[in-house]
Amino acid sequence: CPCPLPRGDSSLSRLLRHLLSARRSLDICLFAFSCPQLGRAVQLLHRRGVRVRVVTDAQYMGLQGSQIGLLRHAGIQVRHDQENGYMHHKFAIVDGRMLITGSLNWTTQAIQNNRENVLVMEDAEYVKPFLDEFEKIWEEYNPINYRFF
Amino acid sequence: CPCPLPRGDSSLSRLLRHLLSARRSLDICLFAFSCPQLGRAVQLLHRRGVRVRVVTDAQYMGLQGSQIGLLRHAGIQVRHDQENGYMHHKFAIVDGRMLITGSLNWTTQAIQNNRENVLVMEDAEYVKPFLDEFEKIWEEYNPINYRFF
Repeated sequence: CPCPLPRGDSSLSRLLRHLLSARRSLDICLFAFSCPQLGRAVQLLHRRGVRVRVVTDAQYMGLQGSQIGLLRHAGIQVRHDQENGYMHHKFAIVDGRMLITGSLNWTTQAIQNNRENVLVMEDAEYVKPFLDEFEKIWEEYNPINYRFF
Repeated sequence: CPCPLPRGDSSLSRLLRHLLSARRSLDICLFAFSCPQLGRAVQLLHRRGVRVRVVTDAQYMGLQGSQIGLLRHAGIQVRHDQENGYMHHKFAIVDGRMLITGSLNWTTQAIQNNRENVLVMEDAEYVKPFLDEFEKIWEEYNPINYRFF
């Protein structure tokens, strides 16, 4: 369903439902992640044994209300950029087959108050380039590559 | 082509090429628009007689470097939200048939330095909901609806 997002709880429920359908893997690539309900869902999947990987933006991950610290504390692997620019993607891939992408950062502000869009797609034509981008970023942001200057 | 966006000039050229293919209409719905080259392309299309409509965010349109004032000065119709939340979409529709959407705001910073994605799609299944969303927002943000409080 390609969908400009109606604001509020129905959008959040739909997003939660898609995420909680994950059985094997969840790859998340998000500029900003502060919504507690979505954070809890990601932790639940991790506890269920789903392989969760999170890529995020270095400048935003430590802001007040960020879910990133909680995810790391729960043992979920998180990697972040080491660049000046923003890691500005807002997508997730469920079980390597369902792409969720759009303008929406996973923040309560955005879900409740903004005009946003979220596309949910299972066509390999669209999913594949995002899978490739995720793997590329995941390697590039490997902590082994941290550089002092 | 669904494409995570390589940074820099090749992405900008590709985006410009898609936009400049417009013959009849260009509908733009953008949170932030400050890239001068893209601003000039939009003005060029307007001068060629393409019907250009722009929807943007009230809090961002007046920031330094914004292209919105220049577009209005050139006679292009621009409408903005009157709400607390952000008008956070980042999409454009060329001739009612090609959807360009993703994480990218049309700013030089984003094009040059950020990790971004842009999807370019012509399937009606994906284009239609964005066309509907544009028309809905366009009416909702009609200046005749401005409210004093």
